[in-house]
Amino acid sequence: MLQLEKYTALIEQELERIDFPSRPSNLYDPLRYFLKIGGKRMRPILTLLGAEAFGINKDQAIHSALAIEVFHNFSLIHDDIMDDAPLRRGQETVHEKWNSSIAILSGDVLLVKAYQLIAKNDPKSLPIILDLFNKTAVEVCEGQQMDMDFESRDNVSIDEYIEMIRLKTSVLLGCALETGAIVAEASHKEAKLIYEFGEQIGIAFQIQDDILDLYADPEKFGKQVGGDVISNKKTLLLLKAFEIANEIQKAKLNTLLAEKELELKVKGVRALFDEMGIREICKEIMNDHYYKAKIAINQISISEESKMPLLELAAYLMEREV
Amino acid sequence: MLQLEKYTALIEQELERIDFPSRPSNLYDPLRYFLKIGGKRMRPILTLLGAEAFGINKDQAIHSALAIEVFHNFSLIHDDIMDDAPLRRGQETVHEKWNSSIAILSGDVLLVKAYQLIAKNDPKSLPIILDLFNKTAVEVCEGQQMDMDFESRDNVSIDEYIEMIRLKTSVLLGCALETGAIVAEASHKEAKLIYEFGEQIGIAFQIQDDILDLYADPEKFGKQVGGDVISNKKTLLLLKAFEIANEIQKAKLNTLLAEKELELKVKGVRALFDEMGIREICKEIMNDHYYKAKIAINQISISEESKMPLLELAAYLMEREV
Repeated sequence: MLQLEKYTALIEQELERIDFPSRPSNLYDPLRYFLKIGGKRMRPILTLLGAEAFGINKDQAIHSALAIEVFHNFSLIHDDIMDDAPLRRGQETVHEKWNSSIAILSGDVLLVKAYQLIAKNDPKSLPIILDLFNKTAVEVCEGQQMDMDFESRDNVSIDEYIEMIRLKTSVLLGCALETGAIVAEASHKEAKLIYEFGEQIGIAFQIQDDILDLYADPEKFGKQVGGDVISNKKTLLLLKAFEIANEIQKAKLNTLLAEKELELKVKGVRALFDEMGIREICKEIMNDHYYKAKIAINQISISEESKMPLLELAAYLMEREV
Repeated sequence: MLQLEKYTALIEQELERIDFPSRPSNLYDPLRYFLKIGGKRMRPILTLLGAEAFGINKDQAIHSALAIEVFHNFSLIHDDIMDDAPLRRGQETVHEKWNSSIAILSGDVLLVKAYQLIAKNDPKSLPIILDLFNKTAVEVCEGQQMDMDFESRDNVSIDEYIEMIRLKTSVLLGCALETGAIVAEASHKEAKLIYEFGEQIGIAFQIQDDILDLYADPEKFGKQVGGDVISNKKTLLLLKAFEIANEIQKAKLNTLLAEKELELKVKGVRALFDEMGIREICKEIMNDHYYKAKIAINQISISEESKMPLLELAAYLMEREV
């Protein structure tokens, strides 16, 4: 049985050890603060698991794992400014606690920090790890831009949506795993297969996120259920609903989107989605990507035992309730 | 005689060849726009000159030169947001022409682009170039944070000010030159000497900027003379004036800083500075750094002929009127 706590603890401990200078304090205090807010640390754990799957000790991939987590936090700090988000995991965002200028600049320096961690890799594997990291970083930015563009567009297709979440979320999961594999000197073919595993898991994970936003148990969820509905966010659920709705359902949905009474809005949308079977359809799309992930990992020529932790983590992510 | 046009033309041509994807257009259009606004292209030229000084063809350092220029433009796009600047070289800034979110994100992807250009270096020199680039990028962020911090501080010392401009401006000039030298396989000692040359020229250059802001010929300057005075910016001139002013001069200066009639304010400050000899004192500090730059370059064991273009560029920068 995969003991996630062991990995999480290692990541937390190593994140704490990142030595930011004391000054300028307005540049580095926000980073010390933000990195402590926490999170699932899923991405760096994937890097460690990717390395272990190909037979090396996880410690050898720790710098890369931290680089991925630090990059993820950079993107969160900047996304929070763009989304004007007051809270992140229940804590004040950097631009709220300090200001936007400080959030921009400390985000910038955190991105550079990620590259400093990448640079700690063996010179032999550095060029290939750096190329993958660069490509992924560009794609994450493209995904975020697509996400912002979708806000003002009325004709977002399901394919475009999947492509957006692939770029914004999934490629970093693929990159995390592949980086671990490269550190472990996996072959190019195997590195790409583990990337694909991560990428498909990432898409499934994000769809699960969309579903949980509306269908999570409020007692366990930790944030407002229905937040996406309230903000009329174009999730897979909403896009699918518009795609398959008949005229009456479409009219009903449009009325609900304009509803000002929020509890009524969330309940109404959920009832309509239930009537249309939206949750099941999205679960099916999710499972389709989960299945693709399993096909990819099955093709990797490592022992079944080596694959177990990755499959267990994937199963855990698919079954999560928060 | 150094023909700067030849270098500028090469940089412009190669910048044009950077192939940004067409979509998402809100991510890449701002970059195509901003890179065309121009500028002196001083930094990438330094990289080319650094490479040539150590005996290789400038084309071999072109990717690094572009990386430095692309990084510089990333920092300008983000600085313009933080400074709420409407114009850059007479053209609308990215956050003005699009919006802040787009300026943040396109700046981010431009920083990654700089790393993609760095990654094109020979694997043999990549780790050392990447380390230098990372260190410099961190320092530039620190300098920008110090600059922002100074706005709300009343006790900025001359030493702190010089340290701020060293970080914000000069280290990138040192990095530009040293990167060219590393591509040319200069020794560590020589690489550090050419870095120091660039660093000291950079400090002198920035002091020259402060002086020109108030003392440039309005016909040639291209932007408002006295802009720093109008915004009460803590330049070397102002800090020096406060440092050496007697009580009467200090009172006069404080009155002038609060003056609402802007033409009167600029004229008054200039008259007071003239009375105190501020321009000459700052010119002396500038020349001191220029002198240190020349000492550094004199210690490099390359032919005097190879040093000429660097010395000519330095002289040109020191004597410029815009």
